[in-house]
Amino acid sequence: MAYKSLDPQTAVEYVKSLDFFPHDAMLEGGEVGDGNLNLVFKICDLHSGKSLIIKQALPYVRCVGESWPLDLNRAILEANAFELQNRLAPGLVPRLYHKDEELSLLVMEDLSHLGVMRPGTLDMRKYPKFSEHLSTFMANTLFYTSDLYMDPFEKKAMVKKFMNPELCKITEDLICSDPYYDCERNIINPPLRPYLEQVFWKKNALRLEASKYKYAFLTEAQSLLHGDLHTGSIFASEEETKVFDPEFAFYGPAAFDPGLLIGNLLINYISWDGKDEPLEKIHDYRDYLISTVNDVYTLFEQKFIANWNKDARDVTASVSGYQQFYMRKLFVDTLAFAAMVMIRRVHGLAHNIDVDGIEDEERRKDVQIRILEMAEELMMYRDTFSTIYAVTGFVKARIF
Amino acid sequence: MAYKSLDPQTAVEYVKSLDFFPHDAMLEGGEVGDGNLNLVFKICDLHSGKSLIIKQALPYVRCVGESWPLDLNRAILEANAFELQNRLAPGLVPRLYHKDEELSLLVMEDLSHLGVMRPGTLDMRKYPKFSEHLSTFMANTLFYTSDLYMDPFEKKAMVKKFMNPELCKITEDLICSDPYYDCERNIINPPLRPYLEQVFWKKNALRLEASKYKYAFLTEAQSLLHGDLHTGSIFASEEETKVFDPEFAFYGPAAFDPGLLIGNLLINYISWDGKDEPLEKIHDYRDYLISTVNDVYTLFEQKFIANWNKDARDVTASVSGYQQFYMRKLFVDTLAFAAMVMIRRVHGLAHNIDVDGIEDEERRKDVQIRILEMAEELMMYRDTFSTIYAVTGFVKARIF
Repeated sequence: MAYKSLDPQTAVEYVKSLDFFPHDAMLEGGEVGDGNLNLVFKICDLHSGKSLIIKQALPYVRCVGESWPLDLNRAILEANAFELQNRLAPGLVPRLYHKDEELSLLVMEDLSHLGVMRPGTLDMRKYPKFSEHLSTFMANTLFYTSDLYMDPFEKKAMVKKFMNPELCKITEDLICSDPYYDCERNIINPPLRPYLEQVFWKKNALRLEASKYKYAFLTEAQSLLHGDLHTGSIFASEEETKVFDPEFAFYGPAAFDPGLLIGNLLINYISWDGKDEPLEKIHDYRDYLISTVNDVYTLFEQKFIANWNKDARDVTASVSGYQQFYMRKLFVDTLAFAAMVMIRRVHGLAHNIDVDGIEDEERRKDVQIRILEMAEELMMYRDTFSTIYAVTGFVKARIF
Repeated sequence: MAYKSLDPQTAVEYVKSLDFFPHDAMLEGGEVGDGNLNLVFKICDLHSGKSLIIKQALPYVRCVGESWPLDLNRAILEANAFELQNRLAPGLVPRLYHKDEELSLLVMEDLSHLGVMRPGTLDMRKYPKFSEHLSTFMANTLFYTSDLYMDPFEKKAMVKKFMNPELCKITEDLICSDPYYDCERNIINPPLRPYLEQVFWKKNALRLEASKYKYAFLTEAQSLLHGDLHTGSIFASEEETKVFDPEFAFYGPAAFDPGLLIGNLLINYISWDGKDEPLEKIHDYRDYLISTVNDVYTLFEQKFIANWNKDARDVTASVSGYQQFYMRKLFVDTLAFAAMVMIRRVHGLAHNIDVDGIEDEERRKDVQIRILEMAEELMMYRDTFSTIYAVTGFVKARIF
């Protein structure tokens, strides 16, 4: 079947062929997507209560139209990433039921009983299993796709399979380049502009460090990344955690995933300066975020090292000192990418609701400057922190 | 036409179809290859004196037989590399006349009027154009295939096109891994073994640094490399220089090419300790080698920077300090790869005739130890050298 975009009715027809629902199912379908790049249908059987999700790539950017074309292959790349993540981190990603190259779609587990984690953190929700689950997800996906474990031929075939130039370009521009100069793609809170012009865009030392990490992003095929691992890509409850939307997956520097995750948690941490919650609640939630950052990174390191000690196959992996070198680089690079994602979310093209939800522009600006200043310090001092505890201690001493 | 290996007669028949020779040509063909992986035919027209070379990949390692299969696609990868090098460094590589995917062969310029440079250096020949030519070759191929210049989509397509896992594996093993432990693939001059066992293989700090560069070789898709740029891959006369055999081409750390080249020149430099030439001649040739290393690297840097200032397109390229960072990294990494190639040529699988030509095993061992010691110092002190002149000054102070 040649590509055509589905609608709720044709989506229902499509799933009937998949043998997922009982034959007497009473199916109902609706489009539930809110993104710019894809159609998302939820199909339910009103009898059994079973449901699933169809995610179909559109051949253009939805809000712009057919004048901005996009490669349809990304749906299959995403399906391939899901398959791999299901194998390496079972239970921590949606199950994949089906992929269809012709129609550029994937059919997967419906997780709408879980909430997306970002709005949860806006409500100060806590996720007691988050650190345990995310550390496993990262340690397994980042270790078992690296040269430490993989056969060199298979690894290079994977690098090829997961080449993802269109979505990499978005990161190269929006995270690594645009925020460091007055790029027209930036979206700037008007009261922030004077600070950017008079202070931030003159910080050449910071821009130079960010440029080194753009180089890493462009060249360093270390592990298969999720590529967009922030709290908006995670469904979570008190018991469950599911990482979704791996459409940015590609072989890049492993630190990018924990960096993005920690950077987003720190944005939320700082954002409370612009909100009117009682100070006691803010302190409590900030302590929760601090321990979450500590736990998720510490557990990630421990599990990565455990995987290494159990399963590393590259002869280099056993060279004395190499593991320390590797883990130290991973840590320092994580801080750098955390800093870069904090910066891009302040005045790049795509912001976080954590901060944009602060309605008063002046007050929002104050929070934004605090984020930029904290990010700068993390980037510039990254070599001086010995552990993640030193980082969070530094953050807490500045802002609490 | 399905793949079949040619013989001199079928090779002559093959070129008749190419419209290269006049119709009345009196063609004569012979197999002139001495390698393990390919057939090489030279076809001459006895009337006009015109000639060409056919290089055909074999589907197995020649000296082992069909039990060690090899991917035939490498011939097309090599042809693609030649095409690109011809465009970026015209006149410095053999011209490519034809490529044939079915037969896994390329047809190219016959350069047998030039000598291979390695035996020339054994005879203390000097090549007055070498530094000028090789610096251009490296500056152009390494700059114009990097993210500094290329469109990010085209660059990633190139990374894919030049994936070369079989030949990369050879480097990963033979250069980056085997020489640092008692690997059975190593070929060891018997009197050297006690030194390796009691001294060299205990140098863990050195092995750790080499492991970091194995990581770079495995992950860092910076530029399209020649991948095997030593004096045995260069035809040269006083006037001409032609780089050939790019079958190891792939996207890797740019410093690998100048590193290999300089490492091989330094092997030749040290090897004279094991030979009976008059000291005056040795001093003269060593001074020539020193100035060659100085010139080729200095000119390479100058031309790379000139390309950058003229043609860089990545927005990062103009960030203040980024060029210095990039060039410094290139320099330090060059010394590391130079050290690694010096080491692998002493007791890895493939040696250099520069040293293996020293017939007395004890005397050869003394030279080999000097090479290992010098390589270790280059690797361990690489961060302390400010320029290539500091490196060659250091070498000359140790050995002259």
